[in-house]
Amino acid sequence: MARRFVNELSEQETLDEVFRAADKQLRANRQGGKYILMKLADRTGTLTGMYWNVDERIFDSFERGDFVRCQGRIQLYNGNLQAILTDIAKVDVSQVDIADFDRFDASAADALEVKLRSILAGLTNVHLRRLGETFLADDDFLARLKIAPAAVSNHHAYPGGLLQHTVDLMEMAQAISPKYPQVDFELVVMGAFLHDLGKIEELSSAGESTYTDRGQLIGHIVIGVQMLAEKLQVLEVSVGEPVPDNLRWQLEHLILSHHGKLDYGSPKVPMSLEAIALHHLDNMDAKLTAVTSVIEADVSGDSNWTNYNSAMGRKFWKS
Amino acid sequence: MARRFVNELSEQETLDEVFRAADKQLRANRQGGKYILMKLADRTGTLTGMYWNVDERIFDSFERGDFVRCQGRIQLYNGNLQAILTDIAKVDVSQVDIADFDRFDASAADALEVKLRSILAGLTNVHLRRLGETFLADDDFLARLKIAPAAVSNHHAYPGGLLQHTVDLMEMAQAISPKYPQVDFELVVMGAFLHDLGKIEELSSAGESTYTDRGQLIGHIVIGVQMLAEKLQVLEVSVGEPVPDNLRWQLEHLILSHHGKLDYGSPKVPMSLEAIALHHLDNMDAKLTAVTSVIEADVSGDSNWTNYNSAMGRKFWKS
Amino acid sequence: MARRFVNELSEQETLDEVFRAADKQLRANRQGGKYILMKLADRTGTLTGMYWNVDERIFDSFERGDFVRCQGRIQLYNGNLQAILTDIAKVDVSQVDIADFDRFDASAADALEVKLRSILAGLTNVHLRRLGETFLADDDFLARLKIAPAAVSNHHAYPGGLLQHTVDLMEMAQAISPKYPQVDFELVVMGAFLHDLGKIEELSSAGESTYTDRGQLIGHIVIGVQMLAEKLQVLEVSVGEPVPDNLRWQLEHLILSHHGKLDYGSPKVPMSLEAIALHHLDNMDAKLTAVTSVIEADVSGDSNWTNYNSAMGRKFWKS
Amino acid sequence: MARRFVNELSEQETLDEVFRAADKQLRANRQGGKYILMKLADRTGTLTGMYWNVDERIFDSFERGDFVRCQGRIQLYNGNLQAILTDIAKVDVSQVDIADFDRFDASAADALEVKLRSILAGLTNVHLRRLGETFLADDDFLARLKIAPAAVSNHHAYPGGLLQHTVDLMEMAQAISPKYPQVDFELVVMGAFLHDLGKIEELSSAGESTYTDRGQLIGHIVIGVQMLAEKLQVLEVSVGEPVPDNLRWQLEHLILSHHGKLDYGSPKVPMSLEAIALHHLDNMDAKLTAVTSVIEADVSGDSNWTNYNSAMGRKFWKS
Amino acid sequence: MARRFVNELSEQETLDEVFRAADKQLRANRQGGKYILMKLADRTGTLTGMYWNVDERIFDSFERGDFVRCQGRIQLYNGNLQAILTDIAKVDVSQVDIADFDRFDASAADALEVKLRSILAGLTNVHLRRLGETFLADDDFLARLKIAPAAVSNHHAYPGGLLQHTVDLMEMAQAISPKYPQVDFELVVMGAFLHDLGKIEELSSAGESTYTDRGQLIGHIVIGVQMLAEKLQVLEVSVGEPVPDNLRWQLEHLILSHHGKLDYGSPKVPMSLEAIALHHLDNMDAKLTAVTSVIEADVSGDSNWTNYNSAMGRKFWKS
Amino acid sequence: MARRFVNELSEQETLDEVFRAADKQLRANRQGGKYILMKLADRTGTLTGMYWNVDERIFDSFERGDFVRCQGRIQLYNGNLQAILTDIAKVDVSQVDIADFDRFDASAADALEVKLRSILAGLTNVHLRRLGETFLADDDFLARLKIAPAAVSNHHAYPGGLLQHTVDLMEMAQAISPKYPQVDFELVVMGAFLHDLGKIEELSSAGESTYTDRGQLIGHIVIGVQMLAEKLQVLEVSVGEPVPDNLRWQLEHLILSHHGKLDYGSPKVPMSLEAIALHHLDNMDAKLTAVTSVIEADVSGDSNWTNYNSAMGRKFWKS
Repeated sequence: MARRFVNELSEQETLDEVFRAADKQLRANRQGGKYILMKLADRTGTLTGMYWNVDERIFDSFERGDFVRCQGRIQLYNGNLQAILTDIAKVDVSQVDIADFDRFDASAADALEVKLRSILAGLTNVHLRRLGETFLADDDFLARLKIAPAAVSNHHAYPGGLLQHTVDLMEMAQAISPKYPQVDFELVVMGAFLHDLGKIEELSSAGESTYTDRGQLIGHIVIGVQMLAEKLQVLEVSVGEPVPDNLRWQLEHLILSHHGKLDYGSPKVPMSLEAIALHHLDNMDAKLTAVTSVIEADVSGDSNWTNYNSAMGRKFWKS
Repeated sequence: MARRFVNELSEQETLDEVFRAADKQLRANRQGGKYILMKLADRTGTLTGMYWNVDERIFDSFERGDFVRCQGRIQLYNGNLQAILTDIAKVDVSQVDIADFDRFDASAADALEVKLRSILAGLTNVHLRRLGETFLADDDFLARLKIAPAAVSNHHAYPGGLLQHTVDLMEMAQAISPKYPQVDFELVVMGAFLHDLGKIEELSSAGESTYTDRGQLIGHIVIGVQMLAEKLQVLEVSVGEPVPDNLRWQLEHLILSHHGKLDYGSPKVPMSLEAIALHHLDNMDAKLTAVTSVIEADVSGDSNWTNYNSAMGRKFWKS
Repeated sequence: MARRFVNELSEQETLDEVFRAADKQLRANRQGGKYILMKLADRTGTLTGMYWNVDERIFDSFERGDFVRCQGRIQLYNGNLQAILTDIAKVDVSQVDIADFDRFDASAADALEVKLRSILAGLTNVHLRRLGETFLADDDFLARLKIAPAAVSNHHAYPGGLLQHTVDLMEMAQAISPKYPQVDFELVVMGAFLHDLGKIEELSSAGESTYTDRGQLIGHIVIGVQMLAEKLQVLEVSVGEPVPDNLRWQLEHLILSHHGKLDYGSPKVPMSLEAIALHHLDNMDAKLTAVTSVIEADVSGDSNWTNYNSAMGRKFWKS
Repeated sequence: MARRFVNELSEQETLDEVFRAADKQLRANRQGGKYILMKLADRTGTLTGMYWNVDERIFDSFERGDFVRCQGRIQLYNGNLQAILTDIAKVDVSQVDIADFDRFDASAADALEVKLRSILAGLTNVHLRRLGETFLADDDFLARLKIAPAAVSNHHAYPGGLLQHTVDLMEMAQAISPKYPQVDFELVVMGAFLHDLGKIEELSSAGESTYTDRGQLIGHIVIGVQMLAEKLQVLEVSVGEPVPDNLRWQLEHLILSHHGKLDYGSPKVPMSLEAIALHHLDNMDAKLTAVTSVIEADVSGDSNWTNYNSAMGRKFWKS
Repeated sequence: MARRFVNELSEQETLDEVFRAADKQLRANRQGGKYILMKLADRTGTLTGMYWNVDERIFDSFERGDFVRCQGRIQLYNGNLQAILTDIAKVDVSQVDIADFDRFDASAADALEVKLRSILAGLTNVHLRRLGETFLADDDFLARLKIAPAAVSNHHAYPGGLLQHTVDLMEMAQAISPKYPQVDFELVVMGAFLHDLGKIEELSSAGESTYTDRGQLIGHIVIGVQMLAEKLQVLEVSVGEPVPDNLRWQLEHLILSHHGKLDYGSPKVPMSLEAIALHHLDNMDAKLTAVTSVIEADVSGDSNWTNYNSAMGRKFWKS
Repeated sequence: MARRFVNELSEQETLDEVFRAADKQLRANRQGGKYILMKLADRTGTLTGMYWNVDERIFDSFERGDFVRCQGRIQLYNGNLQAILTDIAKVDVSQVDIADFDRFDASAADALEVKLRSILAGLTNVHLRRLGETFLADDDFLARLKIAPAAVSNHHAYPGGLLQHTVDLMEMAQAISPKYPQVDFELVVMGAFLHDLGKIEELSSAGESTYTDRGQLIGHIVIGVQMLAEKLQVLEVSVGEPVPDNLRWQLEHLILSHHGKLDYGSPKVPMSLEAIALHHLDNMDAKLTAVTSVIEADVSGDSNWTNYNSAMGRKFWKS
């Protein structure tokens, strides 16, 4: 029987399918009864699962990351689908098609890597081109970049989302470049490549993405500057001279200022045309992608409007 | 002898050239002496002129809009060039080459009109295409659009600036459209066409641009909705049926929300993907163009930084 | 037996009464059980009703707007009364006294219409008086005005509330006019009449009031300007000439600026004495009426203080 | 020859008139020359006077508060009239008609006192009526109230302005009271009487009004509460019992919260209906009076608009 | 058997212990069932107790403040421990060791009183020293000060917390005084003593602390100024002369401005060096103490981070 | 004759003294005349100098940093003293006592270095102590630290100000440490040492301090993290192992969050007790020092109040 994927489930349907247990917590309700609150995942998304009136034996019968067969029913709760479980059982990895559970789309990531390599190789500024090569020569970096999410929630919050967002910005910078001959778009393109790299360290990509200690204390903006410093050091050793100070400071400024306002966590506001362009492209892509997610996930009965979205303080028009 | 244009003048040079008197005011200094504060214009820009210790006879010897021969010297004051006049005399229009004084670049405007017609004619949505035709069929509208500035100061504050900004946004919407298949970019393109049309009525384009009474009291955002209403009425009479309500409301929403925040004078925040895209494109173009103007006009001695710009709360990197 | 109205119910009393089902939703709780969340209404107010452990047959046995006999008990939940239902049955409209369910007080609305006609007829400015006549001559407009609420919640959120608020402001403008001879209070009175008319289109008045698509996308402020435009067009046809531009812009400005700040959705801040007066009267009436509602609805045990009101960020003194 | 009063002067006219020297300062310009910057006052207003290239002997020839004959010319500077002096000479008080220089209108103040006594005597709440009597029985208090300004600048910034503003609010509270039967308007009226009394101590009324040390450190809001405390103590001694605690706290709350927001210096936001009513009436009167002053003082050439007012962030419509 | 104190309880343990019922409320859940929500207190802290499915007879069997034997179990709910009760019975005061239930630590308060007396007695400014003596001579004041909490929640929210916070600030002012010879630290010390005294009247200290009517309407800042006024009057009678005006205003200013910003309820911002020092010391102590409480109370499973604290908008690092 | 130092000059005195030309600019006034605007400095402070009606020959006769004999007069302008020059002549360095011109107090700096070494050497945490040693072993770093200012204006804006501010915070952290046993004050002390080190690179200390390109683009907060990285690398090489990750992140967090709010340029808010303590100590010291400077520099005639300080939005009490 064909697998029912998370994004195919609908209200009231009976559930009997294998998912990855992306997260699990044992909780007590106010009356003192225990229940499991968990995340059921496959490659198409995640779903909250509730298993009421459990004992600890059930909770201990599987681990975070295991594959589990879930039986129960799909319900609507506060406008979101969730699974009410009546049985759960661990399934050996040998019995599943791993491709069904991998939210990370390897071929998409490979295609994005090709684009990334092509854009960076096409830079005419030798310092920027060499810097790109230095990053690309680091296999571990590249492997982590390809599976990293761009956020815990909101826009691009899935494995591979960071590379998607990164390449999109780089291409968009190229697309609008004819309109602004006064702007050095090679800098903008390199800034787009660098701006969110710190998220590789800020977010844990094991299962559900969460903030690392370093991510909480330092943040991806400053981590990004630190990652750039490492690669600049490698490059200096490799070619025998550092990149010019001014160029280095421009790149650091692009990373530091890309949130656009101090209020949003940038320690510097954008002060160059390139930094202004990068900030606006990033902001537009983040907003359009986030609102698209809200619209896609919306299950309000209204055909024209989503439910009120408190993070953005409004409803959105769907049709 | 070749004309010295406003954008060719430099500090300390002797001045003897004809300009258009774009503005003139008679003022008294604290000691009670009188001086003329005026704007000298040609097609390349405007320059403040100061004529000290004048009497009213001199002030009355020419009118706003007249061509005047100005003698004196160029000085730097607070980082901006200005002319210190020692003589001024009216010159008959027959003695000047009118092309030297027209900041409006007619051939550029014609080229933009061609682009505009082409984009609007290429719309596949019949309602939007007909609406475009209705605007384009109004010769008076088109003539005013072509010479309108987009602002009193800041970005695109010159005759023709509105059309430039409008077509730029329409083209940029087309350029990024492949990235966001979920967005109806025909709506964004039409929104880009409509979003600032109210500025035709908000700003007076006689000489220096200023706000009209209607502009002050109503604002270009609501005037734009009123101008759309007029054309929709014409269109309804012409084709015998109104555009669908939903489409009309979408267009009105695009105009009303394009400033992005209530704080910035939009009575509605963007609630559709199209309105969000339009707002961000408009904002990016406005910011990049405004900062480019600041950098171009900057005369600080520093080779890397402009003077502090209080409107945007920062210095800008020039190199 | 005398009817128990919504505003007469008290905690712990047994319920057996007919109400109008103003709203109904079928929901699932976390354990997967279904319940109906509904609004029970009569002319004195509305009450939340909860019917636990229902099946869909019960939910489908009546429609929104039907009259239903409700049995159960009254409970206090989070400081508000609600009905816990144990049985519900549809009742034919022939069996109810429709006057018991109509929150709209027709005689009050008629009395307000008399006041409205009298004030508008008493205007000495011929343009304003004719404009008033044009509105009053539109029977459909008047009928909708009389039953319109002024809000979805907060102040004047009941059928007829808009007319109440409108006439109150017009009378208050007249009452304070002797204090400010420098202000043209005929403009303020007409502004008070016009300022919220857009709510007729912004809010749906079928059953519970909600926002219409047009209301969400355009808002009552700009809709009000559009409604004024329609009547000005009728008036121009009728008398053969338009009202003077300045007067039209003043009226539009009164509508556009009445929220007082950009932040509150006005695209223009008040710039005339009349607009300032209108904004402050509107604000005072809205605040006093809203707080009065909070105090009236409060069921905290404290005799001096209401519960904390998060919308206004404070408790209110009751005694 | 008839006296030329400050409010009759116009640009370019020759000046030869006696004024009171309300303020005088000796200043040096950037070139090291000295000049006197002074305020020339009569009962119709004040005018800035500039006396260029003076020596200290001239500066010392008269004192602040003296009457001086001023010769020179009237100029427009930055949109305001000012006097450019060429001679100044002290004039003995015996040679002037003191009534010409007294901005305080004694008969207006007497009329306001009559209104004040009548309103307070008409209160039906015995505690409030007795409290009013206690204030009115204090001759020194009453004398100071009658000549006090309500502000250093902005609204009611003239001797007697405080009493005018106070009585206006009390009467306006009475005028709107029929609209809000749920509000105790006797409390609002007493609150209107008390709310700004602290300004008597906050502002010095000798010549130009300035802040006192106590005014700067404590502020009129808390000083008002202290003044109320003194009178409540007198009243308690007089009638043998204090006013009820609740009433006292209500009155204190009315004073403390009348600015409406913490941001505006109120340590408490309005939490009673009476406090909300008082705040809104006070705010409306302050705004309308302040804008009226801006419009009256405006000398822009534009017939429709005042100059930009930076305190209120806008221009105002004059016609 | 040794008593299990509130701060010794852990998840899942069986409960059978006597507590003081610090608060009790009868509530109905959505299904109409009743439960008791109460606070169980001993000297080490308070714990929420839930008693499900009760009838009113149980609720009426004890009063707020009574000692009750509680049986049930300890659960974790939303990261906090709470007791799920299965039985509750009143216990006579004769059967408990009152010392187990008194959160007030009398010996700590006595020690703080000694420190307080010593610091105040050591002041060299005679006016300040006498003022301190006047407060200390008021036995009723001192008794109330010693048991007062400094807040309803957040920092120092326990009986005796006010004196602890007060003496801490006084000592810290002394500790940093060598660094700032330009600051009059005797004023800062007296300001530290006075700044929060109004909390004695603002908060009720019977059982759970709540706001009094006077506290809500006036606030501890202005009440503090009123309490100072009473003691200054006593002092004036006692020594035959008032303290100098300037000193009184300084002290009042220290109290009024100690929140640092109008936004935070101070009607005046700090304008003297002493007021600035006091505000910063108070703010630092409040923040460090509040965050320490958050960290101590945290039961998140994470060893490094607390749960997100919405009041302060962040998580805190624990290790 | 004894030298007249900058801080000894008074209004109207005749000037004939040698200063260092800390800054010089050639400017044109509105009438086209040229003048020199310069800064005259000695070790006690700086003074603005104006030399009117100069030609370029005079301007070119000395360089920034030269010693010049200045003749003229001292004037008061806008409440500040300035020198009106009538003659200026370069003086050879051999003819001046260099000690008179050095604002840097070498012996004070040496004393501070001793304190700094002592505190760092006293740390018990071996990682922190070694890190301190690594910084102190860098002679170039130490030399630059000792002469660095802590700001361009406001607090500690003089050579040596950075070290003063740094050591003051370290000592204050030690002074309050007994009050908060839950805080690791060794971390706070090291954070105090590190928090502003980036200012060494952010500000140019040649003559008048200004922002460097790196300072403008990156800012002292992130530069500080980069400087820490360099020393941690040196330390790792030296001892053969890195400091533990957690400790490194704590130190970086202390630097990054010390401004306390995103708004103030910190990319992270303080999330540890140590970061909160450091922020508050830094803020208190900055505010007290800045206000002390305002009071010391104030020349208002008022004996109790400074002039209005627009940066801090208030006047300050002087006595």
